[in-house]
Amino acid sequence: MTKITPVVLSGGSGTRLWPLSTPTRPKQFLSLTGTLSMFQLTMMRASDRALYGPPIVVASEAHADLIVDQLAEIDVTDAMIVLEPCARNTAPAIALAALASGAPDGLLLVMPSDHAILDLDAFQRAAAVAKRLAENDWLVTFGIEPTAPETGYGYIAAGSPLPEGGHAVASFVEKPARDVAEAMLAKGDHFWNGGIFLFRAGNFLDEMQLHAPEILEAALLAVEGASRDGQLLRPDAAAFAASPSDSIDYAVMEKAGRVATVPVEMGWSDVGSWDALKDIGMPDVSGNVMSGNVRQIEAQGNLIRSDGIRISAIGVEDLIIVAAGNEVLIVPRGQSQKVKSLA
Amino acid sequence: MTKITPVVLSGGSGTRLWPLSTPTRPKQFLSLTGTLSMFQLTMMRASDRALYGPPIVVASEAHADLIVDQLAEIDVTDAMIVLEPCARNTAPAIALAALASGAPDGLLLVMPSDHAILDLDAFQRAAAVAKRLAENDWLVTFGIEPTAPETGYGYIAAGSPLPEGGHAVASFVEKPARDVAEAMLAKGDHFWNGGIFLFRAGNFLDEMQLHAPEILEAALLAVEGASRDGQLLRPDAAAFAASPSDSIDYAVMEKAGRVATVPVEMGWSDVGSWDALKDIGMPDVSGNVMSGNVRQIEAQGNLIRSDGIRISAIGVEDLIIVAAGNEVLIVPRGQSQKVKSLA
Repeated sequence: MTKITPVVLSGGSGTRLWPLSTPTRPKQFLSLTGTLSMFQLTMMRASDRALYGPPIVVASEAHADLIVDQLAEIDVTDAMIVLEPCARNTAPAIALAALASGAPDGLLLVMPSDHAILDLDAFQRAAAVAKRLAENDWLVTFGIEPTAPETGYGYIAAGSPLPEGGHAVASFVEKPARDVAEAMLAKGDHFWNGGIFLFRAGNFLDEMQLHAPEILEAALLAVEGASRDGQLLRPDAAAFAASPSDSIDYAVMEKAGRVATVPVEMGWSDVGSWDALKDIGMPDVSGNVMSGNVRQIEAQGNLIRSDGIRISAIGVEDLIIVAAGNEVLIVPRGQSQKVKSLA
Repeated sequence: MTKITPVVLSGGSGTRLWPLSTPTRPKQFLSLTGTLSMFQLTMMRASDRALYGPPIVVASEAHADLIVDQLAEIDVTDAMIVLEPCARNTAPAIALAALASGAPDGLLLVMPSDHAILDLDAFQRAAAVAKRLAENDWLVTFGIEPTAPETGYGYIAAGSPLPEGGHAVASFVEKPARDVAEAMLAKGDHFWNGGIFLFRAGNFLDEMQLHAPEILEAALLAVEGASRDGQLLRPDAAAFAASPSDSIDYAVMEKAGRVATVPVEMGWSDVGSWDALKDIGMPDVSGNVMSGNVRQIEAQGNLIRSDGIRISAIGVEDLIIVAAGNEVLIVPRGQSQKVKSLA
């Protein structure tokens, strides 16, 4: 049986979970939902070596030590770590991984490293369907069952059902207006584009050759000129810097011919804000999601977490209170997108 | 002209401004309203040596160094510091000061060290009236013009006006029920008992002899057995420990024969809670009272202060947010009396 190569994209430098996330320790390296970091949880999702081969991590040179340490903590010893000399968005990052994987027929499962997935069984079932499609040369994007008319996500319109499972993609919808999002939810055949993909390396690279040849050319030169240092692969900096910066969706998926989606309901969250983290957290009887050095009296519906200084909350409702290092943030739930302006 | 001896009572160990106030640094030693501490501001109120003689501070042995340092900062070099070996409430503390003052005819102005007074001119005018009364052998208690039907304060019912100014006291009213407090406010002849007194040392001690002889006896023995160390006076510990613990109001004022009150409107606050501090603070255009390492976006009506870690408040309203040392407190305005339970 062909094993799937997990490709974990860890280049993000999110500031939306400030003050906990910082440029030196972005969201994917934080333990937000338990003991393991988002990156580690992502790696663990594809750790069954009966199904998955050695993983490829694409990350920033700045986080190399963090990656090595966090992989060691979860006993993943067989990863290849591709260190991007600069950030060029997801299309070039995945091109590096596809080329470095070395097997055009090999299956790649591309995953962002900073999303939460609560229902792992649902994820694995969707991956099994996606694998059947990819083996028949479909480029597969996972379609997250939408739970609200979010205007911050791209949507996938599902077309005809396919014999392997899933659907051909009818079209991609950019971040919609509110009423458009509501209409898509009502129709029931639209899904969030969560940035999780499964395809053969060669099929992806073929589509890149057609639709994004400059990115492919830069990635090819970068990998040809790469230096290898144990599990670390450093692509040639000048060659990679010459690549256009673009997302896999814009550069490839929206233009490719044979694109399928596998709808999946798996408790997914991009943890894109403190509000999102509150929503997926385990509340106490008063609805407070708390962790670290914190205590509350008569407080309800709050997210309260600290990695140091003690937080004492009395009688407050529906607040996000986060202490990290030398910073404390207090913001009402529903307004946490404003945090970006402070970070 | 007879000068008045200021007697500053600094034995309190308030926990209501936790986490800023702590047993080692109670409220009176904190800079709550500006650069100077409440204790220093109290000392400055009676620093005009044309009117006031060398002051007497009654404080806890635990705070001796703090007192000496804070007096030096405001160039008060002539104070006598009476260090209580244990806490026995205000009646024994004032007895120590009256005995240590050494002049039965001398006038004592007794002041708590942790109250705020915004209108210093009004305070001095009231002190001048109180002095005339005390020189005619009245025991005078300042009557704070009430601004709300507070149920946490004692009240003074004013009786006949006196030729020197002020009124004879008709009666003292213990902490009243809400409706009683409202009725007193409506009548207009009741005042808060703020714990500020002016009387001759001898008149006070005579009343103690009548109404609280055990306290007086213990204080006498404690001062006779005291040891002097520069400006520090340490009463005999065993003798003072034998004193009953009682307030000046219960032990003396409510029972004494010739008691007067001087009504005064002077922007008084006992700063007995974070809410009280918010009320006397200087708000910005959004109604936020802020100090220290803090910032806000779209926040309104909050008290935000930090002595260390940075506080970032976004969009919150009517909260009290205080960081001190390794603690952060968040509580809605109007609920800050609950802080006591955390300290």
